[in-house]
Amino acid sequence: MPLKLPFKQVDVFTSEGFKGNPVAVTNCLDIDESQVTTAQLQAVANWTNLSETTFIFKPVDPTNDYKLRIFTPKNELPFAGHPTIGSCKAYLEFTGKLGSTTSVKQECGVGIVNLTVTTDRISFQGAQTTMEDVDSIAVQEYCSALGDDIEAVATSKLLRTGPDWVVILVKDAKECFDCNPNMDKIIEISARNGHTGIILGGKKEGSANDYEIRAFAPVVKVEEDPVCGSGALGFIRYLNHLNKFKASQTINISQGGRLGRNGQLTCLINVHDDDSVTYHVGGDSLTVIEGQILL
Amino acid sequence: MPLKLPFKQVDVFTSEGFKGNPVAVTNCLDIDESQVTTAQLQAVANWTNLSETTFIFKPVDPTNDYKLRIFTPKNELPFAGHPTIGSCKAYLEFTGKLGSTTSVKQECGVGIVNLTVTTDRISFQGAQTTMEDVDSIAVQEYCSALGDDIEAVATSKLLRTGPDWVVILVKDAKECFDCNPNMDKIIEISARNGHTGIILGGKKEGSANDYEIRAFAPVVKVEEDPVCGSGALGFIRYLNHLNKFKASQTINISQGGRLGRNGQLTCLINVHDDDSVTYHVGGDSLTVIEGQILL
Repeated sequence: MPLKLPFKQVDVFTSEGFKGNPVAVTNCLDIDESQVTTAQLQAVANWTNLSETTFIFKPVDPTNDYKLRIFTPKNELPFAGHPTIGSCKAYLEFTGKLGSTTSVKQECGVGIVNLTVTTDRISFQGAQTTMEDVDSIAVQEYCSALGDDIEAVATSKLLRTGPDWVVILVKDAKECFDCNPNMDKIIEISARNGHTGIILGGKKEGSANDYEIRAFAPVVKVEEDPVCGSGALGFIRYLNHLNKFKASQTINISQGGRLGRNGQLTCLINVHDDDSVTYHVGGDSLTVIEGQILL
Repeated sequence: MPLKLPFKQVDVFTSEGFKGNPVAVTNCLDIDESQVTTAQLQAVANWTNLSETTFIFKPVDPTNDYKLRIFTPKNELPFAGHPTIGSCKAYLEFTGKLGSTTSVKQECGVGIVNLTVTTDRISFQGAQTTMEDVDSIAVQEYCSALGDDIEAVATSKLLRTGPDWVVILVKDAKECFDCNPNMDKIIEISARNGHTGIILGGKKEGSANDYEIRAFAPVVKVEEDPVCGSGALGFIRYLNHLNKFKASQTINISQGGRLGRNGQLTCLINVHDDDSVTYHVGGDSLTVIEGQILL
């Protein structure tokens, strides 16, 4: 007998339906994880054809809220940004805890991810973000693949936030929004260097902390990700490296306009009293489809 | 206020969940078509990221059952095969007519499509199938893009069944199943010749009418369609051209194995008493997700 489980498809980083990034979420809280196989979950994710499909299980450690398993159409991921926010929203709705919970602990492949819930927003704290130098010739090659006049205005870095993103900052938001990358070239450069893809960013004119970003990962079959949580995480980590902020900063990021989406990410570079820094990515989300799935 | 409408995601050409080709279907029978815009419907289809997303409206002519609008993530289509079968299944479930209806008339961009419903299968009659010659050099180029030893065993034709498919018959089902096409080359050849893609087919050893087919359409961003109704329609039309059948034939087609699917299409070349021929494509289907969508 197939299992009939509660299902939601949540739109993330938007308050308007179909303008964000979707994630398909199945509620497995009332079954045991041993009742399904990894192959079965992978088959669902391959079939939904979304960038990510998730499954919420009972937590291994009962002091956490739930365990999340995240799949792309091809493989299982230790972490992903927008699926974490969308799955947390679905969890709060599935369990009737929306409105009464302000903090959530999610178990996933990278460990425990801490989420903060306010009336209009869910945000996650980046659990795993390392920054490394990246070969300057590879950056030049990426810039030339992004367009004739594209130039990095600061030394690019490789941000490992789950995916491995090369972050490239260009002169402004317009240059970022307008660029028309050559995907074949990006595939070749990414494959040769072992990168997932590029996070391209530019500051909005006249603003202090408002940016446009775009995420290109054609080598993993995602030409352009509409709204990308792990990319935003890498991007704000990189901004703090460039600016060495002494006080906490809210960074507002728009993404997805070129794909007809209107993603809005509200990010926080949190500078603590002991000078340690934590990175937080958040946004609105909206359940668009709800019902049951036959697993 | 957003509209909350009944929604189903149906798996087509399979009786086992996640082994066929999915279509997302919204029931708009209880609203007026003027309550939604084409841009809105297109945005839903862009967001679901499925090869097709459909919307069932009241028929224009009340002697028909419903009007179907079919969208890919990029554009609206006059007709598509698996979405027609999945949407008919959803229509019968939405209206409680499953089990009591044996024939359904669907209005869509190509006109009226006639569907036949039996206990275990829904099939559609091909409304628009024209066959044309195709440049033999293009066919040779396709064969070389499909693999070193791939050779057409009969003169290929261009089948216009909605999409424009070049049908290539190879020596057997194994050659079809095993081939590893070069997608970049197929994109280049398809773009230059104005084709949607290739239907590759081969007969199963020892069988009379059992075939394996595969559908490649990378130029429209579908590298390989898991299970393809319009492709099967073109394929059986082509088989009848080759064989000039004097009596009706059931053609059993498998598709999608290389993508982890297990699509089964039951097709009929119906030779009528007056020697006219109609072409029918059918299969099982299964509602995997059901609930509501917020439009």
